[in-house]
Amino acid sequence: MMKTISENRCFGGVQGVYSHNSEACGVDMTFAVFLPEIAEEAPVPVLWYLSGLTCTHENAMTKAGAQAWAAREGIALVFPDTSPRGDGVADDEAYDMGQGAGFYVNATEAPWAPHFNMWDYVAEELPALLAGTFSIDPDRQGITGHSMGGHGALTLAMGLPGRFRSVSAFAPICNPTASDWGRKQLGGYLGPDESVWAKHDATLQMAARGFDGPMLIDTGTADQFGDLLKTESLAAAIAEKRQPATLRMQRGYDHSYFFVSTFMEDHVAFHAEALWR
Amino acid sequence: MMKTISENRCFGGVQGVYSHNSEACGVDMTFAVFLPEIAEEAPVPVLWYLSGLTCTHENAMTKAGAQAWAAREGIALVFPDTSPRGDGVADDEAYDMGQGAGFYVNATEAPWAPHFNMWDYVAEELPALLAGTFSIDPDRQGITGHSMGGHGALTLAMGLPGRFRSVSAFAPICNPTASDWGRKQLGGYLGPDESVWAKHDATLQMAARGFDGPMLIDTGTADQFGDLLKTESLAAAIAEKRQPATLRMQRGYDHSYFFVSTFMEDHVAFHAEALWR
Repeated sequence: MMKTISENRCFGGVQGVYSHNSEACGVDMTFAVFLPEIAEEAPVPVLWYLSGLTCTHENAMTKAGAQAWAAREGIALVFPDTSPRGDGVADDEAYDMGQGAGFYVNATEAPWAPHFNMWDYVAEELPALLAGTFSIDPDRQGITGHSMGGHGALTLAMGLPGRFRSVSAFAPICNPTASDWGRKQLGGYLGPDESVWAKHDATLQMAARGFDGPMLIDTGTADQFGDLLKTESLAAAIAEKRQPATLRMQRGYDHSYFFVSTFMEDHVAFHAEALWR
Repeated sequence: MMKTISENRCFGGVQGVYSHNSEACGVDMTFAVFLPEIAEEAPVPVLWYLSGLTCTHENAMTKAGAQAWAAREGIALVFPDTSPRGDGVADDEAYDMGQGAGFYVNATEAPWAPHFNMWDYVAEELPALLAGTFSIDPDRQGITGHSMGGHGALTLAMGLPGRFRSVSAFAPICNPTASDWGRKQLGGYLGPDESVWAKHDATLQMAARGFDGPMLIDTGTADQFGDLLKTESLAAAIAEKRQPATLRMQRGYDHSYFFVSTFMEDHVAFHAEALWR
């Protein structure tokens, strides 16, 4: 059922792009996997990278520079898409709703419910496919992401206790229930009852349960979307919860992949330490 | 006259994109410059990166991963465009002719002659602009490039003795006077007299004069354009000339940026050794 779209030799390993018919999303979904060379010998740990608004599987695969460090650390990378796509899939004119903006939730509302099940896709379906297909060790998983993908990484890590050994994020959306990057989407996908939104808010999840493992968050002081991210809410929640975590406000950096790539080495090393231990 | 299009903090330095009215090309040209943090204190060496067919200043800037290593080595990077562009500029339906395919020559033939002067642009105009604008040391320049840009790097390095201390290339077009990646373009831009093509053929230049400095070339054994590159011609010319050079055929790599980014660390380190000495 899985189709190979491309495979390129990369840092001694293989950067592949694949598609498959997703049951969770009811359409063909495309994703990318980087396998380091040592995966030929034995299963390796895996780091999930969830992307942000408007992105596909491709942006981070080509611009984040993660393969250099993953090859060095002997870790696989997975880059899922950010939403279902295609002619039969609902969409919205706004860049931050619909296709390219799945927000890592299972939609319950029309017109989104039939296809927008990115939580199940990333939490259940794709891991099962990967475990049966690639030389990766499902007992050693970490997760990271950028912006909306940072939101996804944090909420999945806290929402699936025991699944991920480590979590990090680049400029994550931290408190979507209180932000224009969140209220519209959670309302649209999940309906008006805000109690069901809480599962998808990293700040609320931090207050409610936290994460059993190390956490690393980088956000730029010059992030042009800083007001929408609400980093201050998560920072306060982390401190109040006494959550083991490192939050770094990086001087002068903005929201771009120039920021992400700059700190990718740190993030991969952070996960490697947790995953190879 | 120079306009700043964007500047992003990147690996402690600044990745900028700029445009200016080019006299050589008779149109506005866009280019990118990465300055490492230490350029704030004193001028730094500069490494030119010339891009391949269909590329702009942007491809390598976002996909080659060069800033990580340039920041570490304290070297500036320059990414010129690959041709003049715009409504008033001649073009061709083929991807390998006209806009995006300047081949680093000064065209003498219609309809190309008015704008297609990429040799002068890269050899004279842009260096003068950079030297007067950025904290770079014009006495410490190296040059590299990919595919058509590797051709440009090699021919400019050999054609401008004393200008570049070091030259390297990723999967360069090595012998365009004998390849379908070259004969059409050199004929179109320079006319039917093949004697004037020789300046723009790395193999012929190697035989005629060579390069006074170190040279590094990487090409993948699985390069899908291997037959067009004619690496074997340049390899033979290097050996015959007794040119100090390292030519590496990299097992399993193709022509993509996954190949380029894999070996970028080596290339930047190679140039740094020559430029900081």
